[in-house]
Amino acid sequence: MSHVVVDQEEVPYVKTKAKLEDAILQGRIKQAARSCKELHEKNASVHADGLYYLNSSRGVLYQTFCDMTTAGGGWTLVASVHENNMYGKCTLGDRWSNQQGSDPNRPDGEGTWANTVTFGTAESSTSDDYKNPGYYDIAAQDVSVWHVPNNIDLEQWSATSILRYHTENHFLNLYGGNLFYLFKKFPVRFGLGACITDNGPAIPIVYDTGNVDYNKNLYGPNSRRMSNFLEPVFFTFFKESSYICALFSDGVCFVVCNVLILLQFCIGGGGHFPEAIPRQCGDFTSFDWDGYGTNIGWSASKEITEAAVLLFYR
Amino acid sequence: MSHVVVDQEEVPYVKTKAKLEDAILQGRIKQAARSCKELHEKNASVHADGLYYLNSSRGVLYQTFCDMTTAGGGWTLVASVHENNMYGKCTLGDRWSNQQGSDPNRPDGEGTWANTVTFGTAESSTSDDYKNPGYYDIAAQDVSVWHVPNNIDLEQWSATSILRYHTENHFLNLYGGNLFYLFKKFPVRFGLGACITDNGPAIPIVYDTGNVDYNKNLYGPNSRRMSNFLEPVFFTFFKESSYICALFSDGVCFVVCNVLILLQFCIGGGGHFPEAIPRQCGDFTSFDWDGYGTNIGWSASKEITEAAVLLFYR
Amino acid sequence: MSHVVVDQEEVPYVKTKAKLEDAILQGRIKQAARSCKELHEKNASVHADGLYYLNSSRGVLYQTFCDMTTAGGGWTLVASVHENNMYGKCTLGDRWSNQQGSDPNRPDGEGTWANTVTFGTAESSTSDDYKNPGYYDIAAQDVSVWHVPNNIDLEQWSATSILRYHTENHFLNLYGGNLFYLFKKFPVRFGLGACITDNGPAIPIVYDTGNVDYNKNLYGPNSRRMSNFLEPVFFTFFKESSYICALFSDGVCFVVCNVLILLQFCIGGGGHFPEAIPRQCGDFTSFDWDGYGTNIGWSASKEITEAAVLLFYR
Repeated sequence: MSHVVVDQEEVPYVKTKAKLEDAILQGRIKQAARSCKELHEKNASVHADGLYYLNSSRGVLYQTFCDMTTAGGGWTLVASVHENNMYGKCTLGDRWSNQQGSDPNRPDGEGTWANTVTFGTAESSTSDDYKNPGYYDIAAQDVSVWHVPNNIDLEQWSATSILRYHTENHFLNLYGGNLFYLFKKFPVRFGLGACITDNGPAIPIVYDTGNVDYNKNLYGPNSRRMSNFLEPVFFTFFKESSYICALFSDGVCFVVCNVLILLQFCIGGGGHFPEAIPRQCGDFTSFDWDGYGTNIGWSASKEITEAAVLLFYR
Repeated sequence: MSHVVVDQEEVPYVKTKAKLEDAILQGRIKQAARSCKELHEKNASVHADGLYYLNSSRGVLYQTFCDMTTAGGGWTLVASVHENNMYGKCTLGDRWSNQQGSDPNRPDGEGTWANTVTFGTAESSTSDDYKNPGYYDIAAQDVSVWHVPNNIDLEQWSATSILRYHTENHFLNLYGGNLFYLFKKFPVRFGLGACITDNGPAIPIVYDTGNVDYNKNLYGPNSRRMSNFLEPVFFTFFKESSYICALFSDGVCFVVCNVLILLQFCIGGGGHFPEAIPRQCGDFTSFDWDGYGTNIGWSASKEITEAAVLLFYR
Repeated sequence: MSHVVVDQEEVPYVKTKAKLEDAILQGRIKQAARSCKELHEKNASVHADGLYYLNSSRGVLYQTFCDMTTAGGGWTLVASVHENNMYGKCTLGDRWSNQQGSDPNRPDGEGTWANTVTFGTAESSTSDDYKNPGYYDIAAQDVSVWHVPNNIDLEQWSATSILRYHTENHFLNLYGGNLFYLFKKFPVRFGLGACITDNGPAIPIVYDTGNVDYNKNLYGPNSRRMSNFLEPVFFTFFKESSYICALFSDGVCFVVCNVLILLQFCIGGGGHFPEAIPRQCGDFTSFDWDGYGTNIGWSASKEITEAAVLLFYR
């Protein structure tokens, strides 16, 4: 389940003598691939999904999951957002929003979307939050999102996913090459900027598992009604007068100022959510507005509430 | 202190040319041993206790401590339970029960006993909680437990242990090969099942350091009195109408429904402990019921309260 | 940015055949350097600041930042103290004091200064707390301190530092060779010992960035006034009847019992700060006594409050 092939033509020196110290310590290992896409392109033989070792541009070696099959393959898992306590409102484990309560003094919350702090492991990314150096290091063009039920083993991620979708228009080219740089440009911070004009990009998506109708049914009827007129998109940021959110989970969004419905689908956010404080604060913002997993009113289904959101780059 | 010998007959390809990238990245390193037992069996020369590198079946490389001497050797350290704040009731650091208070809405607590989340390091496993991929990856038969005083350096673990004991009847063969699978079968979750019939196995133990009488004196007199009639066992799970616990620390248990005494010795548990809430909640459940370290009534001694519980597989 | 050169004369065996398993698993990699100083001395060609792999004496491989230029170079980054929430008083992220509130029952707090628990990464050490095995493993003589604005990339650390200073008199020779052993001798624990006589060493410093006057202006006017008569020092510990602190951040200290001014500059501490509880509790003790970043009264400037403290050994 763990393999990486490196273009041997590019590392001739290891053919004559191989010193571990030379290789790992002098930085030769930097010759290894920086992303699953690079691995995939250089080596026709690399086609299995699974764990691979990658290297960041600073020479940091790490292990993550590569999706080598979807839409041509070459997708690198860089992060997961896992809600460990839907009842906790910005408590321990809400690393993608705030772990210390909804707090106007801490408008950035944990700052995770735009810093280099890493945590978790690829293997446990459906049981805990995950972020690896690829999140800020890889020069990517597109994003893929998997909603995988909590605690599923990686061998079954693809088959058990509730939803999978990806972008295809290379939008990250316009935002620095990854979400780290995108969120440097659009800070996930409460109280910044005005409505609409500060929103990040809304990008069309293609479904790999599920479809628009199936997707809508996972969220509450209120949001379903409003999204009937909309095209599915991956929306990276939304800023309304009283809300901040980092990613929209459903791939179905609507960019109109003060339309609360959108916030039912927030994945991550800043450090403060003033409306009905702290009711909306957390990594899965407001999924339980009308009760946990009820799929009534504004509440999402139990299925989507208990699924980790895996983020891939290509 | 760190060494691993690999059976060279099984990795002939590295004799001709050795590429770090090939080895570490293509997964050749998976040829390395998956457990201390495998290391020990393949290599007569590996006999020193200390840190070794192991590989999981998914190719995850990690470092842990091997006990190569006790009862034939080959024991892999896979986890430790360290109580960082006996006064905190399910607070930060209670990774083997609940870090967010005793909470009926979170019956599984952290879910640590049955998920793949890892944390800590072997070196600091007497100063912090520890869990490595071996916990869920190794195919084991028996368990060994060391109670080591907090903050002791690994070179002194064995010599300073208060208690050490292990099972010998290969009971894990019946439960999937390790505690991860055992606790999948017997979920550490409040509110599940009825009394007695849902309990996990109670397995006879052999003492390596200490003995039955010494052991009993480490716990409070109330429990001492009741355990006088009992055989020493390693008990992996206990479910009573109002309690959940993962491991019994003392190796001396009594399986009778509603007998509260047993809970004085709980190591880890679910996410909710309703009696006298939250007084029993934590990784060392109820050790301080009648005061911290008093060894009076139901309280354990200071000695056992301030010792980390190290778990080994073989 | 990541490179390490190893003295090849010392590892002749890797010239004949190189097995990754042999090298990494048998502990050959222990031949690699144990500190940036050792790297620097053995290899004239190693002169670039950046990430390098090091090995602890127990064979633990880790990656950290080497400062190869300041005052002759050879400085190893072993830790950083990052205040993630100045408004939180001993809350999550206060790993160098107490993460569970100011608590007389937990006088050592997290115990971080004198245990082997590690956390964080070199790359993110201006965005989060950091501690690697070098903190307790390296045999060092001197300490260097950098105050780097939060969230700065490592390539810009040196250029953007607010303050940088180091000791030169090899004082660690007298205290076991590093801060871990120094703090074993001078426990960072509330309620211990008497005034003055239990204090740790106060060591003269040399400025690499900034100077005495600039330094003083970063702290509040009250402390400025008192420190006008003092020489700049690196002070490792201060124990007053009601305070405990691990490091003084400003390099300008005054050792007189009951002189509260000193505590305005505390970096880290024990688990309990009784005066005006919990107002002083945290990794940056009392920096906001007269308001956050006001530089009025006892309050430090916003600049120094929002800068991580990086600790190096040589």
